[in-house]
Amino acid sequence: MCQLLGMNCNTPTDIMFSFEGFRRRGGITDHHADGFGIGFFEGKGVRLFHDDKPSANSPVADLVRAYQIKSENVIAHIRKASQGQTSLANTHPFMREMWGEYWLFAHNGHLIDFYPEQGEYYHAVGTTDSERAFCYILNRLRSRFAEKPDSDTLFDAVAALTHEIRRFGLFNFVMSNGDCLFAHASTLLHYIVRKAPFGKARLLDDDVMVDFSAVTTPNDKVSVIATLPLTRDETWSQLAVDELVMFRDGDIVRSDRPESPVYMSAEEGLAIARAVGVSV
Amino acid sequence: MCQLLGMNCNTPTDIMFSFEGFRRRGGITDHHADGFGIGFFEGKGVRLFHDDKPSANSPVADLVRAYQIKSENVIAHIRKASQGQTSLANTHPFMREMWGEYWLFAHNGHLIDFYPEQGEYYHAVGTTDSERAFCYILNRLRSRFAEKPDSDTLFDAVAALTHEIRRFGLFNFVMSNGDCLFAHASTLLHYIVRKAPFGKARLLDDDVMVDFSAVTTPNDKVSVIATLPLTRDETWSQLAVDELVMFRDGDIVRSDRPESPVYMSAEEGLAIARAVGVSV
Repeated sequence: MCQLLGMNCNTPTDIMFSFEGFRRRGGITDHHADGFGIGFFEGKGVRLFHDDKPSANSPVADLVRAYQIKSENVIAHIRKASQGQTSLANTHPFMREMWGEYWLFAHNGHLIDFYPEQGEYYHAVGTTDSERAFCYILNRLRSRFAEKPDSDTLFDAVAALTHEIRRFGLFNFVMSNGDCLFAHASTLLHYIVRKAPFGKARLLDDDVMVDFSAVTTPNDKVSVIATLPLTRDETWSQLAVDELVMFRDGDIVRSDRPESPVYMSAEEGLAIARAVGVSV
Repeated sequence: MCQLLGMNCNTPTDIMFSFEGFRRRGGITDHHADGFGIGFFEGKGVRLFHDDKPSANSPVADLVRAYQIKSENVIAHIRKASQGQTSLANTHPFMREMWGEYWLFAHNGHLIDFYPEQGEYYHAVGTTDSERAFCYILNRLRSRFAEKPDSDTLFDAVAALTHEIRRFGLFNFVMSNGDCLFAHASTLLHYIVRKAPFGKARLLDDDVMVDFSAVTTPNDKVSVIATLPLTRDETWSQLAVDELVMFRDGDIVRSDRPESPVYMSAEEGLAIARAVGVSV
């Protein structure tokens, strides 16, 4: 299983603290070593970095850190190849344009025998189940809505498509159009909403501390989404199994959660990933 | 007028020598200082770097140099904003997926009152005439061909669309799907085909020399396309006004050239750009 990272904020925010812990899982503190990718929305534009080197010692990751890009929406992924050969075309996040907006998508999990009919608008370039799922979502949305629908209609449509696709297997994903960010858990996905009063936190994967009150204003609201919590000294929340949420302006604004939610332990989640042949 | 750079080869090749001269035009030896972008095909994937800093002192450009990416097809652009605000969404090259391939496009010039009807498949995200032209080309190709046509049919279709669009103004462009590379001149576009026996060349913009025989094999064929020649000690060819060519495997394989070709001097080309209000 690969690691996912997302950020959604109400003001452009530097993700480097979270990314620093996250990327160390790419080869130093964990075994996600087949490449990584990170996409930053800046206005309507996207800055996208892919690398097939382990993120812990990637010059691209060094650039990302040095560049201190501030963004309201970020999607990142560290890959341990489970399906499809390791190549740039198979590196998450994937990007497409829909309704005059760029969309980014990253997936961890494994979809079994997921080969939907080729859609009208979007074709996969690489060979992953993940890109096929992304193209399927976009094709279905675009076929149904020639223009972008209102936010609630969009959420309901993404929820219905997520229900369809997750029948094929593990489908943890994060997806954003630069405005809202969708996050869905089949197994493990955690999040934290940081807002005033801001405290301090220490990375789990590194001896680095940040005092958020020194780098924020009282109105800032920042949500960080990650496969597993990135910090100590803070209380992370967890998405239930089969829960889809939509973040906007740094907070959850919609949720589609099973009536009897189940929360998976990290051990269970990792064991399930192993059992279906997904590397962890 | 902005500067264009393209490379098409029969084997993955390091573009850094050409890029080094090219990028110095972004703020040191020339005035193209509103940002730059470069996209490298690697297999079916694309590595895309955009920066809104002048390319001569951009950390992204430093990374590109340090990384020594080898590619068979490269599209690059240095921007002096003439239309549309300077933003990441307006930074070339633009990218879309069509027929399961990524396509990159960069333009210099200025299209007057070019607002085609919104197409079915591709919408502009930013506000440039350039991205509208790219989306128009893709929409028309995709509407006509559900699957990728053969190479000659594709060239003829791109030529017909180029004839349509250039009626709106200056339309120098380079475009690639990772296999072939299209280049069209309204005013200035030069190219060189390097093949055995390889010689030496010195950058026009910098005191840097390269001995191509030391970094190539006898079978290599590398075409470099640029607004103005990048080297001394070599003979660059020029595209005629209104000439479209298609490169594949490092050489020109198709050309659509006016019956009485006109070749513009650099002075004329720059004067025309100034006259229509495009920065040079």
